[in-house]
Amino acid sequence: MTTEKPGATTRTESDSMGTIEVASDRYWGAQTERSLHNFDIGRNTFVWGRPMVRALGVLKKSAALANAELGELPQDIADLIAAAGDEVIAGKLDDHFPLVVFQTGSGTQSNMNSNEVISNRAIELAGGQRGSKTPVHPNDHVNRGQSSNDTFPTAMHIAVVSELAAMYPRVAQLRDTLAKKSEEYKDVVMVGRTHLQDATPITLGQVISGWVAQIDFALDGVRYADSRARELAIGGTAVGTGLNAHPDFGKLCAAKISEETGIEFTQADNLFAALGAHDALVLVSGALRVLADALMKIANDVRWYASGPRNGIGELLIPENEPGSSIMPGKVNPTQCEAMTMVAAQVFGNDAAVGFAGSQGNFQLNVFKPVMAWNVLESIRLLGDACVSFDTNCAYGIEPNLPKIEANLATNLMQVTALNRHIGYDKASKIAKNAHHKGLSLRESALELGFVTEEEFDAWVVPMDMTHPSAAE
Amino acid sequence: MTTEKPGATTRTESDSMGTIEVASDRYWGAQTERSLHNFDIGRNTFVWGRPMVRALGVLKKSAALANAELGELPQDIADLIAAAGDEVIAGKLDDHFPLVVFQTGSGTQSNMNSNEVISNRAIELAGGQRGSKTPVHPNDHVNRGQSSNDTFPTAMHIAVVSELAAMYPRVAQLRDTLAKKSEEYKDVVMVGRTHLQDATPITLGQVISGWVAQIDFALDGVRYADSRARELAIGGTAVGTGLNAHPDFGKLCAAKISEETGIEFTQADNLFAALGAHDALVLVSGALRVLADALMKIANDVRWYASGPRNGIGELLIPENEPGSSIMPGKVNPTQCEAMTMVAAQVFGNDAAVGFAGSQGNFQLNVFKPVMAWNVLESIRLLGDACVSFDTNCAYGIEPNLPKIEANLATNLMQVTALNRHIGYDKASKIAKNAHHKGLSLRESALELGFVTEEEFDAWVVPMDMTHPSAAE
Amino acid sequence: MTTEKPGATTRTESDSMGTIEVASDRYWGAQTERSLHNFDIGRNTFVWGRPMVRALGVLKKSAALANAELGELPQDIADLIAAAGDEVIAGKLDDHFPLVVFQTGSGTQSNMNSNEVISNRAIELAGGQRGSKTPVHPNDHVNRGQSSNDTFPTAMHIAVVSELAAMYPRVAQLRDTLAKKSEEYKDVVMVGRTHLQDATPITLGQVISGWVAQIDFALDGVRYADSRARELAIGGTAVGTGLNAHPDFGKLCAAKISEETGIEFTQADNLFAALGAHDALVLVSGALRVLADALMKIANDVRWYASGPRNGIGELLIPENEPGSSIMPGKVNPTQCEAMTMVAAQVFGNDAAVGFAGSQGNFQLNVFKPVMAWNVLESIRLLGDACVSFDTNCAYGIEPNLPKIEANLATNLMQVTALNRHIGYDKASKIAKNAHHKGLSLRESALELGFVTEEEFDAWVVPMDMTHPSAAE
Amino acid sequence: MTTEKPGATTRTESDSMGTIEVASDRYWGAQTERSLHNFDIGRNTFVWGRPMVRALGVLKKSAALANAELGELPQDIADLIAAAGDEVIAGKLDDHFPLVVFQTGSGTQSNMNSNEVISNRAIELAGGQRGSKTPVHPNDHVNRGQSSNDTFPTAMHIAVVSELAAMYPRVAQLRDTLAKKSEEYKDVVMVGRTHLQDATPITLGQVISGWVAQIDFALDGVRYADSRARELAIGGTAVGTGLNAHPDFGKLCAAKISEETGIEFTQADNLFAALGAHDALVLVSGALRVLADALMKIANDVRWYASGPRNGIGELLIPENEPGSSIMPGKVNPTQCEAMTMVAAQVFGNDAAVGFAGSQGNFQLNVFKPVMAWNVLESIRLLGDACVSFDTNCAYGIEPNLPKIEANLATNLMQVTALNRHIGYDKASKIAKNAHHKGLSLRESALELGFVTEEEFDAWVVPMDMTHPSAAE
Repeated sequence: MTTEKPGATTRTESDSMGTIEVASDRYWGAQTERSLHNFDIGRNTFVWGRPMVRALGVLKKSAALANAELGELPQDIADLIAAAGDEVIAGKLDDHFPLVVFQTGSGTQSNMNSNEVISNRAIELAGGQRGSKTPVHPNDHVNRGQSSNDTFPTAMHIAVVSELAAMYPRVAQLRDTLAKKSEEYKDVVMVGRTHLQDATPITLGQVISGWVAQIDFALDGVRYADSRARELAIGGTAVGTGLNAHPDFGKLCAAKISEETGIEFTQADNLFAALGAHDALVLVSGALRVLADALMKIANDVRWYASGPRNGIGELLIPENEPGSSIMPGKVNPTQCEAMTMVAAQVFGNDAAVGFAGSQGNFQLNVFKPVMAWNVLESIRLLGDACVSFDTNCAYGIEPNLPKIEANLATNLMQVTALNRHIGYDKASKIAKNAHHKGLSLRESALELGFVTEEEFDAWVVPMDMTHPSAAE
Repeated sequence: MTTEKPGATTRTESDSMGTIEVASDRYWGAQTERSLHNFDIGRNTFVWGRPMVRALGVLKKSAALANAELGELPQDIADLIAAAGDEVIAGKLDDHFPLVVFQTGSGTQSNMNSNEVISNRAIELAGGQRGSKTPVHPNDHVNRGQSSNDTFPTAMHIAVVSELAAMYPRVAQLRDTLAKKSEEYKDVVMVGRTHLQDATPITLGQVISGWVAQIDFALDGVRYADSRARELAIGGTAVGTGLNAHPDFGKLCAAKISEETGIEFTQADNLFAALGAHDALVLVSGALRVLADALMKIANDVRWYASGPRNGIGELLIPENEPGSSIMPGKVNPTQCEAMTMVAAQVFGNDAAVGFAGSQGNFQLNVFKPVMAWNVLESIRLLGDACVSFDTNCAYGIEPNLPKIEANLATNLMQVTALNRHIGYDKASKIAKNAHHKGLSLRESALELGFVTEEEFDAWVVPMDMTHPSAAE
Repeated sequence: MTTEKPGATTRTESDSMGTIEVASDRYWGAQTERSLHNFDIGRNTFVWGRPMVRALGVLKKSAALANAELGELPQDIADLIAAAGDEVIAGKLDDHFPLVVFQTGSGTQSNMNSNEVISNRAIELAGGQRGSKTPVHPNDHVNRGQSSNDTFPTAMHIAVVSELAAMYPRVAQLRDTLAKKSEEYKDVVMVGRTHLQDATPITLGQVISGWVAQIDFALDGVRYADSRARELAIGGTAVGTGLNAHPDFGKLCAAKISEETGIEFTQADNLFAALGAHDALVLVSGALRVLADALMKIANDVRWYASGPRNGIGELLIPENEPGSSIMPGKVNPTQCEAMTMVAAQVFGNDAAVGFAGSQGNFQLNVFKPVMAWNVLESIRLLGDACVSFDTNCAYGIEPNLPKIEANLATNLMQVTALNRHIGYDKASKIAKNAHHKGLSLRESALELGFVTEEEFDAWVVPMDMTHPSAAE
Repeated sequence: MTTEKPGATTRTESDSMGTIEVASDRYWGAQTERSLHNFDIGRNTFVWGRPMVRALGVLKKSAALANAELGELPQDIADLIAAAGDEVIAGKLDDHFPLVVFQTGSGTQSNMNSNEVISNRAIELAGGQRGSKTPVHPNDHVNRGQSSNDTFPTAMHIAVVSELAAMYPRVAQLRDTLAKKSEEYKDVVMVGRTHLQDATPITLGQVISGWVAQIDFALDGVRYADSRARELAIGGTAVGTGLNAHPDFGKLCAAKISEETGIEFTQADNLFAALGAHDALVLVSGALRVLADALMKIANDVRWYASGPRNGIGELLIPENEPGSSIMPGKVNPTQCEAMTMVAAQVFGNDAAVGFAGSQGNFQLNVFKPVMAWNVLESIRLLGDACVSFDTNCAYGIEPNLPKIEANLATNLMQVTALNRHIGYDKASKIAKNAHHKGLSLRESALELGFVTEEEFDAWVVPMDMTHPSAAE
């Protein structure tokens, strides 16, 4: 920790274990300091960032206001906590949240970090002495009617739901670009492909509409999971019973959180499940995996369609953003697709961690809270980032390579399928095989075998007509 | 394959590749026979079973009826197909579906298996010759307006949704047993446990209510995913465009399927996504994972609470179903919990396979259809089986071990938490630590330290009172 | 269970829980019967098959012989057990092993199943009465010096190692076909591809040599893991201490197992780890995942190279084994590649189950033994099956599509890379970009820009020369 | 990026796409700058750190020296590159490596980042102008005989192998503490537990020896995988053919890398596999998963043994490092165990990402290189950190809670197993069951049933004697 430079002045902080020195310019107290010493795991990478710190600020402020309203805290104490909480929410105290994910599995130390920072900052606002616990005690006041066991999962849910809210427009940005492209290219007929093999025609608009539909489907699932993550553990305190909390505290606190965030939260119906399990996060993670699946499919399609430029499929053109190779001059690669598919891989990995951790609760507590929150938040963030990056650096510029599309369509054999309804599958099959083996066009083969006349062939085999259903004549 | 005994009589079947011999007593045709030869992978274990065979029967019957109604098939041909389809649905022809999961990734061979069996059986019903394709052709009639690319995923969804319908009451059976226990033991106060460490009191009813809430939460998610799996690919034919299908075929076929199954299905809005991706199955699998997570937690809790009998926690008693050890006489183990947690492990594995496969579509087709269907169906089945087994062999007989529960409660130190509101966290902490280090009871320690009077202690520290919130006095 | 038909005659079997009726024609006893009733989970699919039954036979025979040699069992009793064990090994009694994977997590019931069947069969061979436990008692004799806790993992390892031995030649069959192809096509120069984009030339022999190298690498890893799975838990009995076993029993039993199987097994150095964890199976599973990764890459490459026939890359030809489509006549698909990649997906899923289960041991036992064994055995079997299927139905017939390969090579721009060493990356880059944007050949572009002479270009840009390193002149 | 403050002076850098402005105080060039703009994904968390930057420095220096030795680079240019490379190795230029993981899948941009930084720094050392590419060109000199496609995986392997070297002593530190404890407590007899149920006695030394054996086993596997990761892709250049590299470059460069790092590296035998697949990283990741599995088991055992203090198993005492609860005064939790098991969950997730990515190569390149390297490096780092944290904050202080151990042992029923050899399993079973149901001690029950005399019981049932094998008398 760079904050503990030798020679820096310190003050003495205390907790139930005794006293410990903390750098004078830090708001945190004894328990945060102990955690810094005891958990030097993944430092740098795994320090909690904005979403969780903000969520803890939202929670502590809301809890103080709720407690005051219920007569559990003097109003002036609550106001001091709310004022310090506002600074946490605004990001002014981020440097005072130095702890990492790999700590106690209940997040107790991060809950205490927020209690300590808010208490000390509130004390300061009141003109008191940091570390004095007067007039605002980290446990008795800031943590009033709360336990890490209900506050940390509450903060997890606030963070996840808030980050999802920020993610939606970022995914929608890509979705809308694609929807526009789908409309724009609705008349571009191209070869369809199944099993990687040539199949019957399809329009580029239809192809892209499938991508849009996948994103929409995935987002529906995320929104459903999101709705379930809005049910908060607050009010459960230590083991879900609500011991030491006012009977109305959980509900009121959830209302205050809704007010603060502009997102509707409620208290969970069953608080024992809300502490002992984090199935809502597993659900969210699973829904994000569907989104990653969809984006993986889309990015794969784009790069395969854009493969070439001369020795691949080459039916789509994508923007050239950077030199593609340190050895092959002039090479351009589908790098945004690669970043997107790597994000998908990361989201799959994160999801595996979340699913595993979600199964490991015992009795009244699941003690994999921090690692679950971290991975879900990371997945949300990466998916949002990747959608914006992919949109602004690739999707916006996707264009059909019309000469290639037309050349491919002209040699496509699977248009024979249009003949099924007229001459039956077995004869149609003979036409296709004959063309394939002799290197003929479909028309040449059909006429050679004599199964149709020229007029029939030209009337029946029309690529654009094959891109939609049609009734038997 | 036991069906190809040397010396058995055969008949000649044909397809676009030519002719092939098939055992006379089998209804399948050339393509099924080829698949049998070409895909000898995982035989025995991975042969499709009832759910998929039934679903194919439902689909083929429904398609024929829809086609007839739309004028795409003569009514008499449709009726023959429906009659043969009814036999498939009823399970009379299961022995004629010998193919394994690891075949073509579109399930084409299983779709053709159903086309061939239904065609040959329908021909037979019409007094014709098996293999003659007259009067009922497997492609032109049974597969009318269809492609494997839309039929197989349609059958997958019918099978999954139907199996889910069968699973719900099986999970509910366990859920209801637990709900009853939760009510029955609502007055049994016991030690709460967080971080595996002694915590504040809770009632056994509350503990079990958390389990019930987890199951309910998981089932909600499964039902949501289920609702999305009711959107069918039918009508998309080869690449999603609906080529060769009547414009109204998909919708009408879905309606017929609903009629046949009593479950409401619809045609998917975007058929390109319905062929190129199977995100609905990934969604279902992810939802089942939440259920597995919940059941894992429950089974773990049960076996830890029942650990002992003398050297563990021992607060719950569970039925003794079998000798537990081949070497330790008289040992009884929580075997149903072990079966349940192994099922959870299998479901997690299946889910990983499904998530992976779901990301691997290309262009107009995802060719991991069979492996996705298999794993989702297996998970559904295992979860249902395991819930019933756990319920009938374990959960029904869960009982509190009252002497042990009371003995534990009597020595529990965390009841000190009730004092927080009266004397503050810091003094309460001293009482607990003093008791712990000197081996005192909480009461002894509290009085020794002089922070409370006897009367106060007895009024404030009442385990049952600690199992619910309470307003500050 | 079809074996319990009403009306069938039964005999009475007993265990420490009391008596129970068993069908007269079954060799199993009370504990197997109880398990059948208590664990109706995944029946049909998840019944133990040959590998585990054979392994239990090998183990019980070897244990009896070792015990006799150590004076722990009378020789005549040991001989009876060995004789019955031989029948189990030979597969004659497979129908008497009806239990499923999802039972007690130690495999106790399957261990007892083998004890009971061997005891009853040995009794019968001795002219006694089934169920009498005389003269061969299932626990005191067949299970002598053993516990499920050491026998079941020992049998797991025997089964896994034996199945691996059977898998190697099946994977090698594919590997050798590819190695031959690699040699055969060492002079076929084709376009290289990175990022799916055209890159510098490579020979088809080199491409395929990469596949062979991946398989070899994967097999090395499997063999390493295999060597670690040959360390057996036998001799640990109930908790790893070896209680009730002769001090030399474990070592001698391992030697007898080696003799019986022809594979060298040893007793594990630390028996506490051998019961409490199954890290060797996690290691094997992880090594199999590498093999699946390799096969996935190979199958993907083959199907992409074979994509087309006209609108894809089309540089490889693969055998046509069956009609590819129920709607598109004449379509041929890379179905063996699809089966292989689905097997890979299944192996990934199985591996996830194994990794999860492997982490869940507690104290002296990991009780996820059956589900771990099942998934590892399934992966081994599927990989072997898939390699043979892929080899005999696809790989043997892979051929270069020379006209397409040459046409692609002729238009490839990345051969410009050969100029780097002569004119530098920056000028080479200009040549490639100029060619790309104007649709020129590389030669035309190079000459137009005047960076090289005709003679230089023809001397420096020679595809075959680009397929190996070369010193600066 | 904080480096691009408005108003900062810039210089113009160029690449084959044209010119771009770069902050004057940065060494990087045009391609790094483009990547910064194009890939704003996961910024902060996912910026490459020391291991990869150092590895790139090692590689570039070694390549320059090898090229000079082979006559491919003038010695003075090579010396300049080596000097700049030394600064990269030493960490002096870390701030000039700003790129994130989610970039092009070949790592081209990070390879170019190192080429650009080293070129510009070398130019500066030579008294030239940054951005002038004279006298040291990023492609023609620093990247001489190289391509991203071989350098990036080479750097990945250097980083992974070097980080593993740093991890071993950190894991060994924990392992050795445990080995010492195992010896120290070899005479502490305690209750064994299987299925969470009381079992036969074991010594604490034996228990801990099992943990040590698990770590040793896992490390063996990691070392095997490590040995395979020492095979480098260098010399393969663009597609594995070695185009533009001197024939001896790869081997010599590997030798230089060995010299620089003190770790023996070699050139991989097959460079096509070394570019197109990263199975060695999948292997390493799988081996790390075994280590995570082992550590998960150990941490779980520790926390369950330490559960209580009064209402759990309580047989181990662990250090109290921090207050355990924000609401429950005096509570102490097994927080190091929780951090460790959360690390295990993260490693499982990372491994899933790596396994997935490893299967996704196409043709001559796997373009998931960065995400694979990132996750493997993170797992290595987390495991090392967690072992040290667990060792210094928990394992060092593990102690038996002798009163609890003895109390449990005194009531343990499974010691009846010692009687099997004397009176048979069936009678022993009756003794245990009688004791269990009547609440008797084993001795009381045995005597009550009359199966043994007092003398026999006392001679035969001796806990310490039950912790090792013994021959039949």
